[in-house]
Amino acid sequence: MQYSTAPTPSDPDTRPLAAGVVGASGYAGQELIRILEAHPSIRPAVLQARSEGFDDISAEGLKNCDIVFLALPHGESRDLGEQLLELGTQVVDLGSDFRVDGWTYGLPELHREDVRVARAVANPGCYATAAILGVAPLAAAGLIDGPVHLDGKSGVTGAGRTPTDKTHLPEIYNGVTPYSVTGHRHLAEIEQELGALAGAPQPATFVPHLLPSSRGLLVTAHVRLVSPLDQADLDDLYRERYADEPFIRLGGMPAPQKLAGSNVCWINGWTDDRTGTVLITSALDNLVKGAAGQAVQNANIMLGVDESAGLTVRGLWP
Amino acid sequence: MQYSTAPTPSDPDTRPLAAGVVGASGYAGQELIRILEAHPSIRPAVLQARSEGFDDISAEGLKNCDIVFLALPHGESRDLGEQLLELGTQVVDLGSDFRVDGWTYGLPELHREDVRVARAVANPGCYATAAILGVAPLAAAGLIDGPVHLDGKSGVTGAGRTPTDKTHLPEIYNGVTPYSVTGHRHLAEIEQELGALAGAPQPATFVPHLLPSSRGLLVTAHVRLVSPLDQADLDDLYRERYADEPFIRLGGMPAPQKLAGSNVCWINGWTDDRTGTVLITSALDNLVKGAAGQAVQNANIMLGVDESAGLTVRGLWP
Amino acid sequence: MQYSTAPTPSDPDTRPLAAGVVGASGYAGQELIRILEAHPSIRPAVLQARSEGFDDISAEGLKNCDIVFLALPHGESRDLGEQLLELGTQVVDLGSDFRVDGWTYGLPELHREDVRVARAVANPGCYATAAILGVAPLAAAGLIDGPVHLDGKSGVTGAGRTPTDKTHLPEIYNGVTPYSVTGHRHLAEIEQELGALAGAPQPATFVPHLLPSSRGLLVTAHVRLVSPLDQADLDDLYRERYADEPFIRLGGMPAPQKLAGSNVCWINGWTDDRTGTVLITSALDNLVKGAAGQAVQNANIMLGVDESAGLTVRGLWP
Amino acid sequence: MQYSTAPTPSDPDTRPLAAGVVGASGYAGQELIRILEAHPSIRPAVLQARSEGFDDISAEGLKNCDIVFLALPHGESRDLGEQLLELGTQVVDLGSDFRVDGWTYGLPELHREDVRVARAVANPGCYATAAILGVAPLAAAGLIDGPVHLDGKSGVTGAGRTPTDKTHLPEIYNGVTPYSVTGHRHLAEIEQELGALAGAPQPATFVPHLLPSSRGLLVTAHVRLVSPLDQADLDDLYRERYADEPFIRLGGMPAPQKLAGSNVCWINGWTDDRTGTVLITSALDNLVKGAAGQAVQNANIMLGVDESAGLTVRGLWP
Repeated sequence: MQYSTAPTPSDPDTRPLAAGVVGASGYAGQELIRILEAHPSIRPAVLQARSEGFDDISAEGLKNCDIVFLALPHGESRDLGEQLLELGTQVVDLGSDFRVDGWTYGLPELHREDVRVARAVANPGCYATAAILGVAPLAAAGLIDGPVHLDGKSGVTGAGRTPTDKTHLPEIYNGVTPYSVTGHRHLAEIEQELGALAGAPQPATFVPHLLPSSRGLLVTAHVRLVSPLDQADLDDLYRERYADEPFIRLGGMPAPQKLAGSNVCWINGWTDDRTGTVLITSALDNLVKGAAGQAVQNANIMLGVDESAGLTVRGLWP
Repeated sequence: MQYSTAPTPSDPDTRPLAAGVVGASGYAGQELIRILEAHPSIRPAVLQARSEGFDDISAEGLKNCDIVFLALPHGESRDLGEQLLELGTQVVDLGSDFRVDGWTYGLPELHREDVRVARAVANPGCYATAAILGVAPLAAAGLIDGPVHLDGKSGVTGAGRTPTDKTHLPEIYNGVTPYSVTGHRHLAEIEQELGALAGAPQPATFVPHLLPSSRGLLVTAHVRLVSPLDQADLDDLYRERYADEPFIRLGGMPAPQKLAGSNVCWINGWTDDRTGTVLITSALDNLVKGAAGQAVQNANIMLGVDESAGLTVRGLWP
Repeated sequence: MQYSTAPTPSDPDTRPLAAGVVGASGYAGQELIRILEAHPSIRPAVLQARSEGFDDISAEGLKNCDIVFLALPHGESRDLGEQLLELGTQVVDLGSDFRVDGWTYGLPELHREDVRVARAVANPGCYATAAILGVAPLAAAGLIDGPVHLDGKSGVTGAGRTPTDKTHLPEIYNGVTPYSVTGHRHLAEIEQELGALAGAPQPATFVPHLLPSSRGLLVTAHVRLVSPLDQADLDDLYRERYADEPFIRLGGMPAPQKLAGSNVCWINGWTDDRTGTVLITSALDNLVKGAAGQAVQNANIMLGVDESAGLTVRGLWP
Repeated sequence: MQYSTAPTPSDPDTRPLAAGVVGASGYAGQELIRILEAHPSIRPAVLQARSEGFDDISAEGLKNCDIVFLALPHGESRDLGEQLLELGTQVVDLGSDFRVDGWTYGLPELHREDVRVARAVANPGCYATAAILGVAPLAAAGLIDGPVHLDGKSGVTGAGRTPTDKTHLPEIYNGVTPYSVTGHRHLAEIEQELGALAGAPQPATFVPHLLPSSRGLLVTAHVRLVSPLDQADLDDLYRERYADEPFIRLGGMPAPQKLAGSNVCWINGWTDDRTGTVLITSALDNLVKGAAGQAVQNANIMLGVDESAGLTVRGLWP
């Protein structure tokens, strides 16, 4: 049998802005297409990938795009990114190539005004987004004593679309698997951003774990304080920091399964007087706020569109 | 901490039509609210449930609604449904009370014109929707020899929000569990609809199975034929039957995990000459096309709204 | 860090019989080793595989084994199997190469006496074991009218240790995926065995499905009858057929998750008078009764050891 | 249909020691029965529970047992435990009633000689076992600076057999759920044991998380050091501490899914010079080393049986 017509979103031809997606066949690329298909003002105009059914990857093919999203494997964005900038195209790179001491770090909750004027934005890592947003208010207030202790848990989509021995279902089912215990790629950007907020180096330990699930991510932070803080003050600190943020949710018990498809980062914190620590949990959808959704959020800001455009959907749950 | 503002869909105050959701705290009720929050012309105006945070259940509180969705446990819709009709409110019942020899059977692909003029519609069961849509073209063509053999597989949300011993995660994880082998509730509506299409009684066997998953449903049909059919004729039969249907997808390998949040029923069929049978698989999201989405599709038709309104979202996958 | 001593089973040096495992690094090979490590009279003496840490694959290296298990990918057993027979070694092949019109078909419940005198046994497929054991009593009684309709569901270990695009966790999570709808490899052996029991060709349809789980398998059979049968007669038929079988469990609701690590095939059947059919479900652990356990059961019989030796463990559940 | 004979382990009548299991219908109780059925010298002689099919709970019915396992909900062991001691029966309590400042704390790796002469043993909590064994060498060496930061992840069986809203599959599937962030029941026993090793109070933070899985548990510890330690010294510290332990495995990447049914606690540690910390992960099967297996290990020691008796099975994986 052949496909019949599936329901289509509103006509993309009337949308004023054209986006290119490079790496359109991967999970982040597919998620970008899904979000852009329902976006009110940006249309997914050019789709490039190494897989069948997509255009070949080339800067030339993207030159008429208002914004280009690079969703390539880590380490493969550098040349194309620089070519696009020379062509005058605005770029959001979802890889890690430009995140540390590179392009504008595209975490709107910290760098919105920089993103607004940037032509090249490095979209943060998925774990890094949850970790930084979770700990930022404490770092900015100068409250952290010593390294931050971060524990991450992510579904398998975080490892990409290419099957590997380590992510094969029978290897990880009915369990949980730590990996990259002392050297995960996202650690550098976490320390860069928390250090900038604190005005001093802010080391961190970060142990990521693979969940027996597909989508969603949680970071739990154990943070020692330089001086005591009561729960009401902690709550105020977060409420004030994130007062007008459209994609931060505070309170309750953050759980990534309630955020599938949503661009929200859900954060809560608890003071533990006994140990002089604060415990923070932050949850998000690794493919949305941790990748494609945040990239669209950045593009919205760069292009002068409403920051929430195309990103207002509620999490699909259960 | 307390919740800060989460992103909200476009302002419901401007939407002309008011919906009531009774049983708003259950999974189908929650899914109705999720869909209606993003609906362009129907607003979720009254939310009733026995749980805290909702209005008490009463016909009186619903009398100003243009449409009322009843998402109550099976067997509990009858009285309220009849009261609402007396008050002049249009009703879509998601329970099984009125499906057999009762209200208009709300499967738009079979009964669209009846739904258009109905004031009371019984929304089909989730398994029944997949089974009937999958086998309907063969039944209508008079091609079926003897009972249809149906095998269903569903995620746990199909059993509702109340935890039970039989759906407790450790009981069903890493396996698959048959249940109600000879007497599932949906069998009667399946036989009713297929029989009506065939113009003669059409018996069926139906064995449902619980998957170790949350959402999504697949029905596999083994259908003996009265006379041989080649693959091209089978494909034509389905393409013609479902030519203009917005929510039927044909071809490929139907898999419910690709339809999460979508109102599509995905069907494919294969002829097996060796045995004189056709094998059909039909997949859907049990909470959307199998419940809340189909209910909104029915409401759209009843209210004269575009049938696809609020239902064009693509499946969230992976 | 390095491994310290893990608990070890009773000393293998005192066991009289030596086994070779070829393909020791795959899931079936690993399961064979696990079972043989705790076997009272057979020791895992030679382990060959293409992976590091194992001996190279060679018939010569196996010539002193009392029994050799071939757990190679389908299609790769033929040459080695024939060489081993020439060397005088007894062989159980877990692949499909010799199952149809080949070596003795190693389903002890049907062919125990043939296995006892065989030097070369083809171990049945995992789905085939469940399907044949489930339907055998009806076939042998001549009760089946037309094709048997079989619906299979299996965890991902059934597809082996090599990761593929189709078994990648995000592709199959939260759903169920049909495959090989009209032409699964096990269909031929199912029809061969049921036909032999019936004394006439016995066609079957068989639709396998991939579960979002790791281990365990269920086959559901819809069987039309040539003449009515009441439930008590059906129960008697199965009880008599399997009266003294150590690895058949009858009654209740078969569920593979309760059989993890067990060599039991769990079967139950229900008559459906309305449609003149019987519905049968059979569950097993695809790596044990569907592969390594049944291979050891065959080896026990061939070597004159107690048939249950090494196979008495209860399913690990939950 | 009715059950036919399933394979049975070796005859319990010849085993010299009688065990009672109170709470035999729960997950820990069922696991105790599974282990004892295959135990060479202890037989499951008396099974008491509130559920049908078991004896009523009474001290009188247990008085001839050599050992009684109490696997009751937390808080329900106290009276029965004390009655049994008065009757002269040895007791292992799997609940939390006697763990803090109560009976001998039954972690054999720390208290083997105390257990050997104890008549009443409190079996440690599942998280506590992993946390204490993971951090004990550092605590005993006086190397820990400030609170230990513990992050736990567990399958749903850790929450018991009674279904609840919070453990209902659709609520936790495809995600991970923190709970009891600042006040988990096991924290007190963790601090008690680590403090005793350190010779000074040893505070800890502990955030537990519910996995979308059934069995298995991992604790990740972030430990700041009072002075630097290189990797070789860390490895030596653990190897020496656990040199002859039958149920400690060191090295590699601990993952609970590889330990299903095994009594092993699998530990590894990494030094992180940059932050002056050590990162430790410890995995175990929460129903075995975290409950029933450790209880049998304690009983073996108390009764003068080989400590590993009945506990040598390898993890069932995949």
